[in-house]
Amino acid sequence: MKQSKLSMLCDFYEFTMSNGYFNNGFFEKTAYFDVFYRSVPDNGGFAIAAGLEQVIEYILQLNFDEEDIEYLRSKGIFSESFLSYLKSFRFTGDIFAVPEGTPIFPNEPLLTVKAPIIEAQLMETFILLALNHQSLIATKANRIVRAAEGRTVWEFGTRRAQGVEGAVIGARAAYIGGCAGTACTLSDLLFSIPASGTMAHSWVQMFDTEYEAFKTYCELYPNNATLLVDTYNTLRSGVPNAIKVFKEVLLPQGITSFAIRLDSGDLSYLSKQARRMLDDAGLPSCRIIASNSLDEYLIKSLLTEDAKIDVFGVGERLITAKSDAVLGCVYKLVAVENEYGEIIPKIKVSESDTKITNPHFKKLYRYYDKDSGKALADELCVYDETIDENQPRTIFDPLETWKSKTLTNFTAKELLVPIFQKGQLVYTSPDIEEIKAYCAAQLDTLWDEIKRFELPQTYYVDLSQKLWDIKQDLLVASRH
Amino acid sequence: MKQSKLSMLCDFYEFTMSNGYFNNGFFEKTAYFDVFYRSVPDNGGFAIAAGLEQVIEYILQLNFDEEDIEYLRSKGIFSESFLSYLKSFRFTGDIFAVPEGTPIFPNEPLLTVKAPIIEAQLMETFILLALNHQSLIATKANRIVRAAEGRTVWEFGTRRAQGVEGAVIGARAAYIGGCAGTACTLSDLLFSIPASGTMAHSWVQMFDTEYEAFKTYCELYPNNATLLVDTYNTLRSGVPNAIKVFKEVLLPQGITSFAIRLDSGDLSYLSKQARRMLDDAGLPSCRIIASNSLDEYLIKSLLTEDAKIDVFGVGERLITAKSDAVLGCVYKLVAVENEYGEIIPKIKVSESDTKITNPHFKKLYRYYDKDSGKALADELCVYDETIDENQPRTIFDPLETWKSKTLTNFTAKELLVPIFQKGQLVYTSPDIEEIKAYCAAQLDTLWDEIKRFELPQTYYVDLSQKLWDIKQDLLVASRH
Repeated sequence: MKQSKLSMLCDFYEFTMSNGYFNNGFFEKTAYFDVFYRSVPDNGGFAIAAGLEQVIEYILQLNFDEEDIEYLRSKGIFSESFLSYLKSFRFTGDIFAVPEGTPIFPNEPLLTVKAPIIEAQLMETFILLALNHQSLIATKANRIVRAAEGRTVWEFGTRRAQGVEGAVIGARAAYIGGCAGTACTLSDLLFSIPASGTMAHSWVQMFDTEYEAFKTYCELYPNNATLLVDTYNTLRSGVPNAIKVFKEVLLPQGITSFAIRLDSGDLSYLSKQARRMLDDAGLPSCRIIASNSLDEYLIKSLLTEDAKIDVFGVGERLITAKSDAVLGCVYKLVAVENEYGEIIPKIKVSESDTKITNPHFKKLYRYYDKDSGKALADELCVYDETIDENQPRTIFDPLETWKSKTLTNFTAKELLVPIFQKGQLVYTSPDIEEIKAYCAAQLDTLWDEIKRFELPQTYYVDLSQKLWDIKQDLLVASRH
Repeated sequence: MKQSKLSMLCDFYEFTMSNGYFNNGFFEKTAYFDVFYRSVPDNGGFAIAAGLEQVIEYILQLNFDEEDIEYLRSKGIFSESFLSYLKSFRFTGDIFAVPEGTPIFPNEPLLTVKAPIIEAQLMETFILLALNHQSLIATKANRIVRAAEGRTVWEFGTRRAQGVEGAVIGARAAYIGGCAGTACTLSDLLFSIPASGTMAHSWVQMFDTEYEAFKTYCELYPNNATLLVDTYNTLRSGVPNAIKVFKEVLLPQGITSFAIRLDSGDLSYLSKQARRMLDDAGLPSCRIIASNSLDEYLIKSLLTEDAKIDVFGVGERLITAKSDAVLGCVYKLVAVENEYGEIIPKIKVSESDTKITNPHFKKLYRYYDKDSGKALADELCVYDETIDENQPRTIFDPLETWKSKTLTNFTAKELLVPIFQKGQLVYTSPDIEEIKAYCAAQLDTLWDEIKRFELPQTYYVDLSQKLWDIKQDLLVASRH
């Protein structure tokens, strides 16, 4: 798919609404939109923001070419003045976002757009797509990495991903979330995500014997030999042949770093048996890699059984986030500017509590304990509020308002940083290794209670008194 | 992402294995690989094949440019002779596949590659990716369309898809599976999948009143007016305002085709109340569109409750196949040619029954009852077998071999058709409307028992006596 066509990766209604705004006097109207999600996939305690770099690339290329305009014209519903406007379209607004790799919680903005309404509207679909997808996969990958308790996790899901980008960009997100690398060569080429792999059953089948297949492979790749041992019979044929070849080909060269891969059968039982056979053969340094429909639940189970697995290759269930395949970020109008440039907060009410939005142009603060460095709470404030770290700060639960807490010994960090200002990019995306390291460091600031897999503690995301008051006023005003 | 880079959308081990084949005398060796899946997502009775057109495009562009070669060289493990071979790489083999839109069953090939081993190996990842993704979404979309029992289903999932292709190509697959169209403009532009949409809450919020927002929209798009009625209060504000505007703006113009959309709250209750209000207002032609995390299970439930919904907009749960987000097609070696050009069948045994492959270069027949036109069974035959429709044909279960059936009044259709021959494309992909119509027609040949949602009848996929004998011989020979 041509990169230049990403501008048309857009829900059709963004065009019909924009045409309507254009022709009804809203052209110059500045609007504020927040991107946020409402619930954590897999009932987890947090998600990890990812996808900002792709949002930036999208905005930088955002324009409509002749073919796009002609396509829209053919629909017969767009005014020529609107089409002419699209021809010279470029983004002129501001964008604020949390850096990639930041842990994020429900109902707090991970990205805010301030722009003329048409610009903001036309960007909705792609921004959501990019942030939803990558944040979903980074979050899932991190769950799997945490379940592996320090063991290496490789992302091996390319062939089962949902489309080319599902694979290539998915591998990027998985790397941010903590995977050691990917099977996908293109992710390495484009994004420097280390690509690696072992062998397929077809390699073994192509030779007259399994022994010959293993021997040839070890002679060819002595420094990176991982032998797939389940083509015929893991314990009776695969492991013994692997041991024979390691001893014949690699040990004489002084090489002691190699591995076997288990890809079927009971991974717990087979890994323990294989471990014993390898140890008995004097190969304690041989690692055991396991793959086959793994995810955090299976990995936890295997480790509980004391399975002897050093490395996990995780495919389809990671790259599609199979157990809960959607992160539901939404893009909601939170304010508009009136003719005097005043910011008027807007709210979306709903029959269900959870769908009521937090109005207004906001700041997002995260408070850290000065001694432990641990994250204490997040607070949503109105854009013109500032936090004085030297003053005690009382925060309170926005629903159960009698629950409050006063912070004293804290640092305050503003999480939303400027990405675009007046259409100009003012942010430099860190390289992928920096993002990965930042993510790991930020996760260290979360208490284990937040990272628990089952029924994690709910992290505080509170509203400042000023924002809370504005929200209440809008809710009261919305009553019929 | 550049289209030209798809050749590198490839598991890294395809390159390491290929380099090994190249340098160990397998260069000219012809191999046969089958693509097949083992179990139907959501415990359904069948899947729908899709993605062949993208496989064809991929193969036509398959080559390695200087940047690709340089990347591989930088790894320090590939021989220069192999890299030089890759420079002039092109596909020279044969491909057979079932047409897009064909219902397919577990363990039967939907695509077969006959090619020199390196060519066949390098194509594995992309072929699997494309067929897995689109077949998954076509299958899921068809489940949802069947649940809607004749009502229209729109695919609205772009913003929650897994990457750009997840959205754009996913919409193509959903259309093949029976959806009426998509929200995604780019899918319309590239693949002629009809794009449509209604309005977002932001449209309503931008105006001072809901009434004004609705009025402006109907004046702008009188022939395509769908009003989103849940921004403030569906029954107290949204529906009454919609009725007012339809009567003031559209009825006087003689327009009676318009709709409201419900996007939150209890869709069953709200649709019944809204239906009554619309009918009482003399607007029986006003359709009701419902959206909000729908899938086949929710739609069935809503219809059981007699919800008054005419059109379903289905998003995240369709475009990600959320309830079961993976179709697990595999790519398995089934035969190789020896130095005399004889085809030697290969088998992959496994500790688990379900992972044992069907060996050999095969034909796939589907038998239809001459009177009813219904599909009776599929039979996998050796490549050199032919079926005489005028002779009775006895088929038998490959595991419970005493269960047999003799077909007499049948037609036999070969499902795998030539796509490439000696590297040349010999197939013309039907246009998307033809594929969609073919899919619907093929689904009509399946008995309802196969299409049941819960515990569907297992469709017969048998082996010919000749193929069965070969498989048994290989299994016996594999014993240790």
